[in-house]
Amino acid sequence: MNQVQKWGVYEVTLRGPSEGNPFVEQSVEGTFTSEHERVTAAGFYDGDGVYRIRFMPSFEGQYHYRVSATFPSERLEGEFTVIPPGSTNHGPVRTRGFHFEYADGTPYFPLGTTAYVWHLQGASTQQTTLEELRKGYFNKIRFCVMPKHYLYNLHEPSSYPYEGSAAPFEATFSGNFYTLMGVQPGNHFDFERFNPAHFQHLEQCVQQLADMGIEADIIMMHAYDRWGFSQMTASQDALYFRYLLARLSAYRNVWWSLANEYDLLRGKTIADWERLAEIVLAHDPYHHLRSIHNCFAMYDYTRPWITHCSIQRQDVYKCAEYTDEYRIRYGKPVVLDEIAYEGDIDQGWGNISGEELVRRYWESALRGGYATHGETFDRPDGILWWSHGGVLHGESPARIRFLHDILCQTPGVGLRRMQASWDEVAATAETLGDSGYYLYYYGFNRPCRRTFSLPEGNTFAVEVIDTWDMTITDAGQHQGSFTIELPRKQYMAIRIRKIPPHHA
Amino acid sequence: MNQVQKWGVYEVTLRGPSEGNPFVEQSVEGTFTSEHERVTAAGFYDGDGVYRIRFMPSFEGQYHYRVSATFPSERLEGEFTVIPPGSTNHGPVRTRGFHFEYADGTPYFPLGTTAYVWHLQGASTQQTTLEELRKGYFNKIRFCVMPKHYLYNLHEPSSYPYEGSAAPFEATFSGNFYTLMGVQPGNHFDFERFNPAHFQHLEQCVQQLADMGIEADIIMMHAYDRWGFSQMTASQDALYFRYLLARLSAYRNVWWSLANEYDLLRGKTIADWERLAEIVLAHDPYHHLRSIHNCFAMYDYTRPWITHCSIQRQDVYKCAEYTDEYRIRYGKPVVLDEIAYEGDIDQGWGNISGEELVRRYWESALRGGYATHGETFDRPDGILWWSHGGVLHGESPARIRFLHDILCQTPGVGLRRMQASWDEVAATAETLGDSGYYLYYYGFNRPCRRTFSLPEGNTFAVEVIDTWDMTITDAGQHQGSFTIELPRKQYMAIRIRKIPPHHA
Repeated sequence: MNQVQKWGVYEVTLRGPSEGNPFVEQSVEGTFTSEHERVTAAGFYDGDGVYRIRFMPSFEGQYHYRVSATFPSERLEGEFTVIPPGSTNHGPVRTRGFHFEYADGTPYFPLGTTAYVWHLQGASTQQTTLEELRKGYFNKIRFCVMPKHYLYNLHEPSSYPYEGSAAPFEATFSGNFYTLMGVQPGNHFDFERFNPAHFQHLEQCVQQLADMGIEADIIMMHAYDRWGFSQMTASQDALYFRYLLARLSAYRNVWWSLANEYDLLRGKTIADWERLAEIVLAHDPYHHLRSIHNCFAMYDYTRPWITHCSIQRQDVYKCAEYTDEYRIRYGKPVVLDEIAYEGDIDQGWGNISGEELVRRYWESALRGGYATHGETFDRPDGILWWSHGGVLHGESPARIRFLHDILCQTPGVGLRRMQASWDEVAATAETLGDSGYYLYYYGFNRPCRRTFSLPEGNTFAVEVIDTWDMTITDAGQHQGSFTIELPRKQYMAIRIRKIPPHHA
Repeated sequence: MNQVQKWGVYEVTLRGPSEGNPFVEQSVEGTFTSEHERVTAAGFYDGDGVYRIRFMPSFEGQYHYRVSATFPSERLEGEFTVIPPGSTNHGPVRTRGFHFEYADGTPYFPLGTTAYVWHLQGASTQQTTLEELRKGYFNKIRFCVMPKHYLYNLHEPSSYPYEGSAAPFEATFSGNFYTLMGVQPGNHFDFERFNPAHFQHLEQCVQQLADMGIEADIIMMHAYDRWGFSQMTASQDALYFRYLLARLSAYRNVWWSLANEYDLLRGKTIADWERLAEIVLAHDPYHHLRSIHNCFAMYDYTRPWITHCSIQRQDVYKCAEYTDEYRIRYGKPVVLDEIAYEGDIDQGWGNISGEELVRRYWESALRGGYATHGETFDRPDGILWWSHGGVLHGESPARIRFLHDILCQTPGVGLRRMQASWDEVAATAETLGDSGYYLYYYGFNRPCRRTFSLPEGNTFAVEVIDTWDMTITDAGQHQGSFTIELPRKQYMAIRIRKIPPHHA
């Protein structure tokens, strides 16, 4: 059965030298050819004298591959068959205008979450995380390749990306604030010798997510580091990027986030990020989605290599409300990858209510963008979803899944903001013509009723949506001007859909 | 007993001609002299051949007055005694830097409300309004001289400011939106002949408010009009202003709001407003507080005649959060006289929650400004506090009174924003030196705890304030760096006060 699904991972394994430093001294690549495409993909050394080349086919049918290596090898070419994708395999996600869709044309609405190092926790926490994710609250998860050293996450990771040893670390406290001192002395890692087990596990996690239909928004670099991984040389960074790209590019659900809070990596300049972006462009033959995430200063999201904005809020009070402005400014899909988390920790970025987080999701959705979840409850077990995964305790995940259901019922690939009254946010389908689909959202306002004036001659089905209680109530069929009663609560929406004439 | 309290109203009454149009053909004025001041005040015709001149003395002691009139009169001069003010009489409110105080030096924190035409409703509604106001929720009320024609208030007022007759009016509906058509045909009012009863009642209301310690923020003009009062000629406007100023200036609790939403009076230019401001300056000998309130475009609050900003919010999501920016921009006290009302009507300006309104009060207070209440519940009786007064149904008034209690416990005349973490709003007393008073507010954030680092060598008394449940909980005495536990709820504050060394 030398076959693989379209958008699956086809892997060629070779044996080769293990002496010296194969990570830098050896290289392999494969060229994969079919009637419809010809892709050259770099391979990587996976330890123990094993080299692998991975390939994601984008077409069905017969493929031929030819391998070249810096060492003699017997398996230099071969054939395989690409079969149709399975029912849950829609291919990689691409942008479509201000929105996203899978390669097979299925719309994709990124309602993601954040769990930075869920895969570097103990096995049982990881298992719990996967069980939570299986509930379908989110279809994207942001997480890091490198371990994390930050508030609430000062323990050692389950593995390191490099060979070496970590210096013992003891958290020091000042009040309830950890003293975070940056890269610590006494760490001994060889930044030219990867730990294949670290990446094998990462790949396993990515595959598990793919199996659940969840996109892996891979954070390639971040500043929360005491081991030195954020302060490597330019050539070490490049080696790392090429290694990661060779290993992961063939996974259809991968997105590349060059950095979390790029501007906190004080040693790197914009030129450094642009150089790293060039490496991604050159070494990901499938052109997975690419972005970079800010702390203070926005990255210039108009840069051509960036497929979509990955924005952290700039204001305590307003964030999702800027979504439509970001669309205009950057001309690309807007994903708000950090807009404060549901929780109750002492940090202002991690203690908003579920209601407020869900409101931000709706505000961004109706403006034609997308928000990202995170959860940070101060708990006796010290496990915070945003960092470790584990169990979700908040009230927002179920409401986020409900919003996803609503989005899946829109015509087309997504919403765009529509002109409406100053005191409501209204959206219609992102199409050129009139889709006959209108969605109104009232946020923290509590109108007792609203009046609509729609084009005469059509009949509209109206529903009242309680975005918090997750109910959809039939409010009848209407024409022209009509009034819809509302329950005088916050977080209500009204959905209006034109009924095709023969159904009215 | 020819005597009056300092800051009371001393009134001289004369009989004079009633033939012709005394409002324009006659004039009276009085000059009031004591050891400390000499004030010339215009009088006014009060109907039925009665002319009055009112005077508010600012000093105790013996006064002499001399009257001049365009008609022969017997009472041309007299004497009276000004006695000390009563215990609840603190004099008119003045600005002090970015804040306010009464003339006797008592700090005044304007936490006001809005009930535009409460005094033009039926007697029982007016009585109910006064009973509500007596509960001490507010110490300022914004209301209009002229009747109001607007959503929820389309009935005829209990009186008109001019002689004449109103055209019958029937509200027409389009869905649940009233069709508001501006000035209607068929109204016949003589804009040069006032209705003294209208103003006598207004004065009675102002006096009732004074007796309760409530400032009367008198809206001189507004656009919600079907009778023509908003579209008079420049000379008619001037006549009206002078008449109002002559009648009301002697009441210590009067503030002059030249207009509500000045920019909706489309027929008036900035030059018109500036001319009207000149009239106020010339005809109010006591220099009551003066401002003007916007709808869309801010008035230039740096204009010298303006004593304080009277601002309507410019954004659905942020308003009170701009208070400190307004202070910098305008260099004057900031009163946010319209930031949406607690309620559930169909209009976005009138359906926020009590929690959200109270949050806006706190956000403005800690930034060194002040917010104003209004209430708009859609009710079967059609009585909305914001327009009619009546019974308060909302949850915010008690919390506003609680905030007032907190403000009264600050040292000095008010708060100013203090540098703090990005995720909290902090205030200290508006003094040059360190007052040892610090107030922190967390709004919709829900921190489980917060850590403070205060100057060593002092002891601080710390309290946790639940701004919604209106509790103040002792959190002990602390020095240096310390952590305060919080109940993981929204709308919490922490108050820290330095304990004098001999008390610690």
